[in-house]
Amino acid sequence: MEVHIFNTMDYEEFVRKFGNVVERCPMIAAAVWSDRPFASLEALESTFGDFIDLLLPSGKEGILRCHPDLAGRDLVLGALTSESRSEQSQAGMTTLTLAQRSQLSELNTSYKNRFHFPFVICARMNDTDTIIEQMTIRIHHSLERELQAGIGEVKKICRLRLLDIFNQVAPSTKL
Amino acid sequence: MEVHIFNTMDYEEFVRKFGNVVERCPMIAAAVWSDRPFASLEALESTFGDFIDLLLPSGKEGILRCHPDLAGRDLVLGALTSESRSEQSQAGMTTLTLAQRSQLSELNTSYKNRFHFPFVICARMNDTDTIIEQMTIRIHHSLERELQAGIGEVKKICRLRLLDIFNQVAPSTKL
Repeated sequence: MEVHIFNTMDYEEFVRKFGNVVERCPMIAAAVWSDRPFASLEALESTFGDFIDLLLPSGKEGILRCHPDLAGRDLVLGALTSESRSEQSQAGMTTLTLAQRSQLSELNTSYKNRFHFPFVICARMNDTDTIIEQMTIRIHHSLERELQAGIGEVKKICRLRLLDIFNQVAPSTKL
Repeated sequence: MEVHIFNTMDYEEFVRKFGNVVERCPMIAAAVWSDRPFASLEALESTFGDFIDLLLPSGKEGILRCHPDLAGRDLVLGALTSESRSEQSQAGMTTLTLAQRSQLSELNTSYKNRFHFPFVICARMNDTDTIIEQMTIRIHHSLERELQAGIGEVKKICRLRLLDIFNQVAPSTKL
């Protein structure tokens, strides 16, 4: 097995680097470290996914509830994590028209009233129009289906954040 | 069932209030919210404990790894959570002699080298002498026993933090 940089880190360094690949859930990175060494980036990514899949439904809901609203309170307050700020910005959440902002705010509220967790989507794979479109569709899902959809998006976000970290800490390392 | 203040909170308020009763694991409070309403403070506390107990061993290790060292790097850097800063201070970790600081530092390192998670103890139920004594004893435990011991301490910390929050948000409410 090739020695990857993530297999050489002690848990403290690993959590500092990977603690936010699942938004505001450093415990998950700290748990994933137990399964080192990882044969590849894909193996590391799968370990995050497997840990999430084995949680109770309440645990999965808990993960979603650690995510900020899109164009919501934390963005206005400047309280987003740096990853989330960058992702929301790339998806156009910081340059909304007044009408879009109002529509998103209403959709956020309706979605949370229905599901009791926020709408989560991999912002970097979307833009303002597709986000609003997806919210409008997903708000009619069942709770079970929407929990699964939200967790699916968490995994996409996790994958892109992992890739970012690798490009940053090991630009010349084969992934 | 009496209506308790914690049953009236939406998930965002609940996570703001209870997000750190398990150190740096807001996801756990966010998950526990799914099981509302809670009949009592004890019921709320038990839900936290049950969620932790049902995690994989790696998840329990992950919780421990989200805890700072006693008198460690985060204390020196001013990077402790406010709860942890207060607890470490009450247990004398901010007024150690040079000899005690050195002894604790060595014990922290040995402990982490052996178990790959930090030594966790309910600081408010101890003082510098009993903390050093417990580290000296527990470092000889098996991994399984020590994981259990650490999680037992996490639950004691959780209980005291819950009590603090209740005394703060509802001083006149029957607990």
